[in-house]
Parts: sequence; C-alpha cells; structure tokens
Amino acid sequence: MSTTVERIRNGVDTGQMFGTLDAIKADPSLARFQFRARNRWLGGSHNRSTIRDFYAANQEDTSRGADFVLDAGEPAILLGTDTGPNPAEFLLHALAACLTTAIVYVAAARKVRLTTVESTIVGDMDVQGTLGLSDDYRNGFEQIRIAFRVEGDAPEEKLQEIVARAQQRSAVFDMVTNGVHVTVDAKAA
Amino acid sequence: MSTTVERIRNGVDTGQMFGTLDAIKADPSLARFQFRARNRWLGGSHNRSTIRDFYAANQEDTSRGADFVLDAGEPAILLGTDTGPNPAEFLLHALAACLTTAIVYVAAARKVRLTTVESTIVGDMDVQGTLGLSDDYRNGFEQIRIAFRVEGDAPEEKLQEIVARAQQRSAVFDMVTNGVHVTVDAKAA
Repeated sequence: MSTTVERIRNGVDTGQMFGTLDAIKADPSLARFQFRARNRWLGGSHNRSTIRDFYAANQEDTSRGADFVLDAGEPAILLGTDTGPNPAEFLLHALAACLTTAIVYVAAARKVRLTTVESTIVGDMDVQGTLGLSDDYRNGFEQIRIAFRVEGDAPEEKLQEIVARAQQRSAVFDMVTNGVHVTVDAKAA
Repeated sequence: MSTTVERIRNGVDTGQMFGTLDAIKADPSLARFQFRARNRWLGGSHNRSTIRDFYAANQEDTSRGADFVLDAGEPAILLGTDTGPNPAEFLLHALAACLTTAIVYVAAARKVRLTTVESTIVGDMDVQGTLGLSDDYRNGFEQIRIAFRVEGDAPEEKLQEIVARAQQRSAVFDMVTNGVHVTVDAKAA
C-alpha cells in the first residue's frame, strides 16, 4: 500500500517549500536577499523601471531569462498622459500582491486547497499634502483598506486564520504598515 | 514687445500645474483623491492587478481609456515561475517612480530644465522573517537605498535642493518611510 502525498498545492511545490525552509535552518546565511530596480526618467511623469537581477542564497541569482519593464505615469488631472499606473497605485498593487501570495503559500503549507483569492484595495489621500499646499495633510495615503474574498476547502475559521497569518508574514504589509528606513543619495551636475 | 514664457518644462505643463494649485486653494474639496486596484490570484505566486478608475476633484475620474494590468510573481528560489516582478520589487519601483516624478515636478515649478534623472534602488532582506523561521528578522526590507543621478541647467546646489524637496513631498516616500494604517477585511467561504 502506498500513501499519495499531494506535493503541488495551490500551484506551490510544497516539497520545494519545505526543502527551502530546511536548507535555511541548516545554513541561515542562505536567507540574505537583496532586490533591486533601475529607473530612468522619460519625460514629464513618465519613467521606467527595469528589474531582473537580485542576490539570494550567497550568490547573484541568474535564473531570470529576461528583464521586467514597468512604466509609471500620472493621469491628466495630475499632469500626466497615462503612460502607466501612478506610483501610489503601484504601491497598492505591491501590497495586494504580497498579501495574496502570502495567503496562497500559507494555505499550501497548511494543506488547504484554495479556489479563489480576490481583493479590492483603496487608498485615500488629500493631495494638499503632496502638492505642498498644506502641512495639515500627509503626502501619502491617510489609510489603505483591502477587502479579500477567499474560497477553499476549509471552514471559514481556518481561512480567516490563513489571512491573519499572511498579514503577520507579508514583507510588503510589514513595510507599508511599519515603515522602512530609506537612504537617498544624489549625484547632481 | 512680447515676453516668451516657457509653459512646458521637463514635459510638465506648468500653466496647468499652477492652475491646478490655484483651483485647489480656492476649493480645497477638490484635493480629495482615492486610488484603487483590483487583484486576482491566478495560481501559485502569480496574481494580477487591474487599475483604472479613481476618485478626484469631487467626482469619479473617467479620463483613462484603458485598464492597466500588472502581473506579479516570484523567482524560482521563492517558489515561482517569474510571472512578474515580486511584490517587494514593485514597492521599490513605486518608490523610485514617485521620487523621480517629484523631482521632475519640483524642477519644473522652480524653472530648472532637467536632462537626466536616473536611479538605482536596492532593498536588503533576511527572509528568515517572512518565511516564519525567526522573529529576530522583520518581514520586509531592513533598509532601502536609492542613488540618483540628476543633470540639468542649474548648479549642483540647486539640483540637490530639488531632490531634498522631492523627498519632503513624495507620496510613496512618506508612506514607505512613515508607514500607513492598513485595514484588512476578508470574506471567507
């Protein structure tokens, strides 16, 4: 008699997942990562980031076969021509994407098969801050609200626990809610 | 004799810029904005945001002719298949893009013609945090560093002042450095 073990769950290779965790436990130096983007101004509110290389597991990662290219812009009311989402919208996407992946990975580890993860995320802002018209308003969003719809083969309580655990471990949720120290250096000529 | 006024500077319509500022000064209710994204899980670490509508100047903005679609993913070492940049990389792009646009808009307002704005942004992370292996490490980046190269028709000191002012007014720089309150709601079934 053989036992069938479901190795791929929610599109995640759980064998690789637990193997990675074991490898890092054995050698924590593997856990040092550095992610990067290069950005170039193209005129007005149009600028473009190129993303590819990163550092992981004690070496430069070379597994990516091509660059990712992201164009940012602004809508007409913010003096742009819609060359891309605006930077604040990219931040909303980063947060929704990170929480979603965290939900999927946590569910895979906890043997829950998901069928749906959808979300709507909104950020409210009074642009008197960022436009320099008033110091009574911050520059960024006053608040961000994200509403998930999660479906899978587990009771509601277990699915809610998965969402809660995802918040506790999401890299972008941590950064957006707690803040990160940012150093800005400029060479000007 | 007529005076020539340069209205478009750095690709920014400065006439529209100062008109917008005057309109908001006259009616601050115009400054209430809400940005949004909708995200859907597509399997594993692949998820997709759709961005289009937003609220501004007391109404739903309908100026955008098409959706923006952003795909997120993870590299192989983080159990993905490179369906897009990962969420933390999107955050780096959001920050670089916002600071860049702020530099360009501040320079336009201060009558400085820019020729180059380029940047490299990096974020350092020990993934023992986000993987749940150790509470000694935060989930997100320990620090983010961005290095700009800015060129234009002003002395270095003035260009540095523009970069400094951009930091003071960038929406994403504010959010990433100071944090934002995020509410997560989940309907699970």
